[in-house]
Amino acid sequence: MEINLIPKEEKFFDLFEAQAERICAVAKEFKDLLADWRLDSDKIEKISDMEHEADITTHEIMDKLNRTFITPFDREDIHELASKMDDVIDLTQGCASRMHRYRIASTPEDLRQMSDVLLRSTETVRKAVMGLRDLKKTRRILDYCIEINSLENVGDQMQEAAMGRLFAGERDPIEVIKWKEIYELVETAIDKCEDVANTIESIVVKHG
Amino acid sequence: MEINLIPKEEKFFDLFEAQAERICAVAKEFKDLLADWRLDSDKIEKISDMEHEADITTHEIMDKLNRTFITPFDREDIHELASKMDDVIDLTQGCASRMHRYRIASTPEDLRQMSDVLLRSTETVRKAVMGLRDLKKTRRILDYCIEINSLENVGDQMQEAAMGRLFAGERDPIEVIKWKEIYELVETAIDKCEDVANTIESIVVKHG
Amino acid sequence: MEINLIPKEEKFFDLFEAQAERICAVAKEFKDLLADWRLDSDKIEKISDMEHEADITTHEIMDKLNRTFITPFDREDIHELASKMDDVIDLTQGCASRMHRYRIASTPEDLRQMSDVLLRSTETVRKAVMGLRDLKKTRRILDYCIEINSLENVGDQMQEAAMGRLFAGERDPIEVIKWKEIYELVETAIDKCEDVANTIESIVVKHG
Repeated sequence: MEINLIPKEEKFFDLFEAQAERICAVAKEFKDLLADWRLDSDKIEKISDMEHEADITTHEIMDKLNRTFITPFDREDIHELASKMDDVIDLTQGCASRMHRYRIASTPEDLRQMSDVLLRSTETVRKAVMGLRDLKKTRRILDYCIEINSLENVGDQMQEAAMGRLFAGERDPIEVIKWKEIYELVETAIDKCEDVANTIESIVVKHG
Repeated sequence: MEINLIPKEEKFFDLFEAQAERICAVAKEFKDLLADWRLDSDKIEKISDMEHEADITTHEIMDKLNRTFITPFDREDIHELASKMDDVIDLTQGCASRMHRYRIASTPEDLRQMSDVLLRSTETVRKAVMGLRDLKKTRRILDYCIEINSLENVGDQMQEAAMGRLFAGERDPIEVIKWKEIYELVETAIDKCEDVANTIESIVVKHG
Repeated sequence: MEINLIPKEEKFFDLFEAQAERICAVAKEFKDLLADWRLDSDKIEKISDMEHEADITTHEIMDKLNRTFITPFDREDIHELASKMDDVIDLTQGCASRMHRYRIASTPEDLRQMSDVLLRSTETVRKAVMGLRDLKKTRRILDYCIEINSLENVGDQMQEAAMGRLFAGERDPIEVIKWKEIYELVETAIDKCEDVANTIESIVVKHG
């Protein structure tokens, strides 16, 4: 008979998985928003609401961390993972919010393509996070992390190309400044997916 | 009789508290500088001097860390805390220095308000740092960290609103570029206060 | 007779040293590129090739980390060190790539000087990395880290001065935006050298 003295802290996985689902949902909503951009789109507020929910989940994780003696992996990794996942959502929401604030009239193809890379990256993040419950499948989780890294490179290339086109085509410097910030926000959101992947990699190499 | 085999490393707390006081002093000086902005204000050099003193304290902490066997909390957390506190001061000083370098003529209300958020955030950082000596009061320290997180959100909102007004009102793109950088520096200084809070949170969840 | 039960993981040091050499080689190539800037310079592609090689080395380190039970220092520090070294190369390559993409016509003295600071910083990084094999020489390694920190301050000052001159002299805002990004990329590459130094410092204080 095997007696389980250390209760598994399943709740952490529930919270991480809920947050991973939310990251995808926000990225999906953002992509849909860009596909049919309107300054009065109710998707902007919906994304904002999801960002608030994400904040609550983040605080729940931090709070649970503070009240739990035995954690499924290192406390600092839980802290880091929660914090980076929150960053992805913050940046995506921040981008939608700035586009509204800056009275953006229409969305270029470059941005729509970047939002697709962000969505694919968040979907891979979700798969990697789902793998944390059972760290035996190390290889598969690390493959997701490699895929997230590749998508980050793709996003970076896209941003560079988009900026090249912007500098070549747009003559209003104020518009260039606005668009540069918008592209940077999406690219940084994709970057933060890579940070999540790095944290997951770090957990896997320690516990896998 | 209780024999204290492990001498408490009080000196670390002294140094952290001195640095926390300095962060507030710099933020206060910066706020005062903006309230009465002049290109020849001696506050610019005073802030620069305080930044040099902060560097010395940071090196003292790192040096002490290298020569101490038993530390009050994890070496990497001490390292991180010292480094992030230094960042807050560097960014505040960097902002004052750039405003001088870019021959800024006057300070808008948006910037003055952001400097007030920075000051409030540094004051809360100071309170949280003061709590590290006695980690029993976990709840109170974590509440300060939550407050710092909220102030970061406020700072972010202010920056977005400030940029919106800038894009709507300022027609000289060179001025827009300058101001964008200045707002970003203050916002990043507030961000780094949040990083300090995250490190403190991480210390508290491990030792509290 | 002393039996060595734990085989030293020399391979990690080999990989780190190879990467440190590559960082210097990239910085050298970048400096040479700027000294004789041409849009069709084959140095741009050479830097790009070196960046791909660096990615392979980074993956080799991560993979080895995943398959190794006993590591010469903390797994998270190895992860961090590999990741930050990769960042230095990515940013340097990204700068060369953007200069090409943005059809930059000529390179100002300010940029050439910053590339020299980057080169000096990478050379000091290389010396610090070489010190990791024998952590006894703590003082010397920490001195290299202090030097890297000083060079970061120098780079930051240079960037501020370069931006000051740009704002004073360049009237085409689109050019200002391009150059601001280029200076920032070099400055961030120098920053990442400091991150490498901080990780090395952290390893040294734990194991030295």
